[in-house]
Amino acid sequence: MQPSSLLSRVRVVLVRPRNPLNIGAAARAMSNFGFEQLRTVAPFDIAFREARSAVGALEILKKAAEYASVAEAIADCSLVVATTAATHRKPQQPVVDLPHAANLIAKQGGPVALLFGSEKRGLTNQDFGYCHWLLRIPTAEAQPSMNLGQAVAVCLYEMTRKELTIIEATQEKATARNLDLLTTILSDALLRSGYMNSDALPSTEEKVRGLVRRLNLSADDAQLLLGMVRKVARKAQP
Amino acid sequence: MQPSSLLSRVRVVLVRPRNPLNIGAAARAMSNFGFEQLRTVAPFDIAFREARSAVGALEILKKAAEYASVAEAIADCSLVVATTAATHRKPQQPVVDLPHAANLIAKQGGPVALLFGSEKRGLTNQDFGYCHWLLRIPTAEAQPSMNLGQAVAVCLYEMTRKELTIIEATQEKATARNLDLLTTILSDALLRSGYMNSDALPSTEEKVRGLVRRLNLSADDAQLLLGMVRKVARKAQP
Repeated sequence: MQPSSLLSRVRVVLVRPRNPLNIGAAARAMSNFGFEQLRTVAPFDIAFREARSAVGALEILKKAAEYASVAEAIADCSLVVATTAATHRKPQQPVVDLPHAANLIAKQGGPVALLFGSEKRGLTNQDFGYCHWLLRIPTAEAQPSMNLGQAVAVCLYEMTRKELTIIEATQEKATARNLDLLTTILSDALLRSGYMNSDALPSTEEKVRGLVRRLNLSADDAQLLLGMVRKVARKAQP
Repeated sequence: MQPSSLLSRVRVVLVRPRNPLNIGAAARAMSNFGFEQLRTVAPFDIAFREARSAVGALEILKKAAEYASVAEAIADCSLVVATTAATHRKPQQPVVDLPHAANLIAKQGGPVALLFGSEKRGLTNQDFGYCHWLLRIPTAEAQPSMNLGQAVAVCLYEMTRKELTIIEATQEKATARNLDLLTTILSDALLRSGYMNSDALPSTEEKVRGLVRRLNLSADDAQLLLGMVRKVARKAQP
């Protein structure tokens, strides 16, 4: 588990975003994963206004702070990280893959800026100059460049990635009594139908008992199956 | 590392998708993470045609198979998993959080169907009936429901999530010789400028030596700094 303060420490900074849908998608991902602070640098004006005024625009987007330059947008941050596909250029800064990057960001105590470039051009070398290191989402070589909203979602997912949990279905499991009953009725039906003779009953019953356990029945399903087997068993005649 | 065959074993199944942009975004995420097989169930016809014919539509989308029902779309799969926000309903199936779900899918040998519901309504209980278990992306309680394209991206990211790696910047580090030279020149400048007297030289030089190492200079930056310090040192007069 990350310290919960991570959610308020991270500023998602969209640098020169051009598409209102992508700005909205970034805000959506932030609210999905509980992040609060969205900043934009020189957004395409009409796009930003359109995204903010969209029906159902999120509070995060309405409260987003707008800056004229990267320098101003990151001024209060003690760690500045740029996202990049980083496949075709020789990096001047270390490149850290997302899983490890999320760890480094979590360990850092102060405010963190996470920069995302514009849809077409990404971030420039000048933008990278403000960054301590670059974050790379490990993608396929044939198509490394991600959609802006999807890249934001994947980064924030990794930063809040939870310990493994499995919520078992809430259904009650069948009781041993009912499983035994099912075993008996089914074995009896097999005997009466001529599937086996009475000599083989003990070994067949054993097989049926194992099978019935492996079915991993819920209480409801055990009842359902009992009713069915009873019905069929009654009809079975040697 | 996942076995590479995972990429060909997983079928991403979009059930009743309504928005061409989301269908395109799902295909984009698949190509970003190297997945190949996209299937749609009863897509909104115009939306699907529009997504396929969009400029820059991906090969994955053009080759997407279309099915009339969930049953047909998953017929060849030995594991069927539905994605869900799963917050407001009592699940009939086990709910597995994404990190663990990705593990289970990787371990499974055969073809796997990963179902995503429509943007508005998600998947129905009938759809869930075809599934072995449900996959939940751990999201904030206040806003659990993710955008379709972003949900696909996050799931596929987790399934191909790589071991931690850091690619160090390709810049050569400064040599010890140059760091020593820098230390000597800087100490000398401090002495000549009256920052300290000659008695204090050894202890100050030690401090400068530590400082110069902590700067973690590249070879280029060490040269740059040497030139600057030399220039300043020459001007320094007691």
